[in-house]
Amino acid sequence: MVERAALSDKRYPIKGMNVWTPYGWKIMRFVDTYIRRELDATGHDEVCFPLLIPETEFKKEKDHIKGFDSEVYWVTHAGLNELDVRLVVRPTSETAMYPMFALWVRSHQDLPLKTYQIVNTFRYETKQTRPFIRVREIHFFESHTCHDSEEDAQRQIEEDLEILRRIMKELCLPYFLLRRTEWDKFPGAHYTVGIDTVMPNYRTLQLGSVHHYRTNFSVPYDITYEDENGEHKHVHQTTYGMSERLLGALISVHGDDDGLVLPPAVAPFQVVIVPILSKKNAEVVTAAAERLRDELTAGGIRVKLDDRDDRPGSKFYDWEIKGVPLRLELGGRDIENNVVTFARRDTSEKGTIGLESLVPGVRLILDTIMHDMEAKAWEFQNSSVRHIESADEIPKEDTAEQRVYSFGWCGCDECGHAFEDAHDIKILGTPYIPEEFEGKCIICGKPTKTKAYAARTM
Amino acid sequence: MVERAALSDKRYPIKGMNVWTPYGWKIMRFVDTYIRRELDATGHDEVCFPLLIPETEFKKEKDHIKGFDSEVYWVTHAGLNELDVRLVVRPTSETAMYPMFALWVRSHQDLPLKTYQIVNTFRYETKQTRPFIRVREIHFFESHTCHDSEEDAQRQIEEDLEILRRIMKELCLPYFLLRRTEWDKFPGAHYTVGIDTVMPNYRTLQLGSVHHYRTNFSVPYDITYEDENGEHKHVHQTTYGMSERLLGALISVHGDDDGLVLPPAVAPFQVVIVPILSKKNAEVVTAAAERLRDELTAGGIRVKLDDRDDRPGSKFYDWEIKGVPLRLELGGRDIENNVVTFARRDTSEKGTIGLESLVPGVRLILDTIMHDMEAKAWEFQNSSVRHIESADEIPKEDTAEQRVYSFGWCGCDECGHAFEDAHDIKILGTPYIPEEFEGKCIICGKPTKTKAYAARTM
Repeated sequence: MVERAALSDKRYPIKGMNVWTPYGWKIMRFVDTYIRRELDATGHDEVCFPLLIPETEFKKEKDHIKGFDSEVYWVTHAGLNELDVRLVVRPTSETAMYPMFALWVRSHQDLPLKTYQIVNTFRYETKQTRPFIRVREIHFFESHTCHDSEEDAQRQIEEDLEILRRIMKELCLPYFLLRRTEWDKFPGAHYTVGIDTVMPNYRTLQLGSVHHYRTNFSVPYDITYEDENGEHKHVHQTTYGMSERLLGALISVHGDDDGLVLPPAVAPFQVVIVPILSKKNAEVVTAAAERLRDELTAGGIRVKLDDRDDRPGSKFYDWEIKGVPLRLELGGRDIENNVVTFARRDTSEKGTIGLESLVPGVRLILDTIMHDMEAKAWEFQNSSVRHIESADEIPKEDTAEQRVYSFGWCGCDECGHAFEDAHDIKILGTPYIPEEFEGKCIICGKPTKTKAYAARTM
Repeated sequence: MVERAALSDKRYPIKGMNVWTPYGWKIMRFVDTYIRRELDATGHDEVCFPLLIPETEFKKEKDHIKGFDSEVYWVTHAGLNELDVRLVVRPTSETAMYPMFALWVRSHQDLPLKTYQIVNTFRYETKQTRPFIRVREIHFFESHTCHDSEEDAQRQIEEDLEILRRIMKELCLPYFLLRRTEWDKFPGAHYTVGIDTVMPNYRTLQLGSVHHYRTNFSVPYDITYEDENGEHKHVHQTTYGMSERLLGALISVHGDDDGLVLPPAVAPFQVVIVPILSKKNAEVVTAAAERLRDELTAGGIRVKLDDRDDRPGSKFYDWEIKGVPLRLELGGRDIENNVVTFARRDTSEKGTIGLESLVPGVRLILDTIMHDMEAKAWEFQNSSVRHIESADEIPKEDTAEQRVYSFGWCGCDECGHAFEDAHDIKILGTPYIPEEFEGKCIICGKPTKTKAYAARTM
């Protein structure tokens, strides 16, 4: 689907580093626009930190470097010289930013410090790469904040989740918020909340995460502030990030056998107009189609008039692949009746819109599409979870019966590892927003009030 | 000035790789917005190519690699492994893009291919680094086009110069368009047009360039198309790029002893409102200032209400450093008279605007500022050129008498090199838009119709 819709080109001569072609990049840039809108509105400042990080800075937080040691790219030479200090190509920017935060934060008046950047990041993936899902150059945003207390950092996490809710609404994407297990949290984090969505094959895809660092980074990077009593204290930090996997999720969750189905908010063209010409009315219909285009454009709707010299059916096919949410067909009969015929990409539903209320009519349908796509995707996610009492209910490998599983878990590492290893599945974590539960640990049988979620992952 | 206005932070632990802090990044993003607007409007598609380029691709065009050999960063290791093929961190993207263009271009119907990207690029600078002027990670745009003929490529260059004119108008920046000498053109180019501006010390700064490649890259990268007769031919290519030096030029050309002077088009805040409070009218004035802010915001003007608890004089000082084009002062007397007092950043001119025509009044002043800043900058550039008959008129080093020089040149390499070497100055080139001239070569004395420009460069 990625190739048919020309979203990216994976023929670039480095495996896992793909070229963003115009159509895919346009969609990604709409996603970025919503991210910027939400982060700006909540008082985050956009910055841009250097790509390269000296090895000496990179190694300051021990767990962090351990987590990334085997998957970073190293710059060792510049021009004809070998560098004294090797440089890491950013896999994420904690170690680039925090030496500067140590200079920027002086007093409690500098807090909270809320920054973000939208950049590309680099991981030397050894697993099979897949466009937007597992790549070696990853487009993403990362926000980094500093606070005067653990509580204020916690408030930031609540704000992040509200930002998430608003962004995901534009993308019509459902998600789980799961607090990751201790062995799966981000290297250096106090805790990590994973943001996962379910793919059509019932594997889950992690779209991003939110981390509470407490002072785990501010101690090694010496980020301190003077409080109101003149005491020096370490800041509490959080980060939040999501990647181009958002686009990967869009494609898989909404797409169908005919191609992409794009949410109107991120569709490069929200509407395509296909004139239905006959020999005798070609001029009249073309002129009317141009008026339609101009009226919709003036109404703030992103519209494409497909006036190529080709059969309508062939044009329908092309724009279905591209996922344009709404198609308008305009023929002689439509003009006589003062209407235009529409076809929804998501449901194939057809109907007509009166030309005298074209812009509000189109807006209403786009809003309905958005609403229906979101509802359908949430319905699928909700129906994807099966609560199990015994791990034997999990099929040994991918089958049509595979689901996302919820189950009782005593919470101990031993039971967690035992479960994961025996069933080749990953515990995604426990609900970040607590779900009432009473049951038994699926492994040791102890009574527990903790529910966990597990799935095979992409 | 860069530090006082908090445009970037050069304390990052790699020399020449600076952190874009929020205020500087906002200005740069406005510049990017104009670049996107103009390139999109002329049918260029935005793309995003990988950062890393395999050494094997990088070395295909011989002159090109020679030009960059000593100034690129090399990735040699990934994780714990040494790579089989070393990777170059992009210094510019010809060698990343052209293997893909060879796949994308098939027939004359695919032409012209017009693409661009806005990314960061990397040069291992060995000279003294300076923020925005000479850095090792450079924010820039690069457009790359393919055409079916040399003439069509030439038409692209004319379009590029029209795009340039429109962008520079927003930035109130003047420029020279000079066809570079043979020994100074871009590695691999047929010819290069340099875009230079004059700094207050009369040194010139190259802001960007436009290149005609003919088929110099399409032959080694095998980018061919089938013409209407079924014949396979190599495409003709052009590129065009400008960097964050645009911001460097903005700062130097427009700034004064009190700080930045920002053109309204790229100012994060176009207007700052400073309420002048006394004990008895604080509430009334504050409320009126908030109404002013809301009215201007609703009018599409970027406005900051400075309601900090500080003296007005201290606020004036801060916003002058930041270069906010227009300051509005609102006190009890102003409210009584139904006006607001304004002060222009560029000229210090003061006056009043009637509150009943606030938005059109502010718009008019911002337009006037724009016009005056542009006129003043062009006037300076025009007055910076001195036509000389003898090279002895050039001072040996930077002095108050130093200028940009124009002179007769026979056009031969020997005279050119002799002139540059003897006077420690660079020939910027010959006017791209021909200037009528008859004189003698400043070195050999032969009659010539060619005028050249030379300057010491930043």
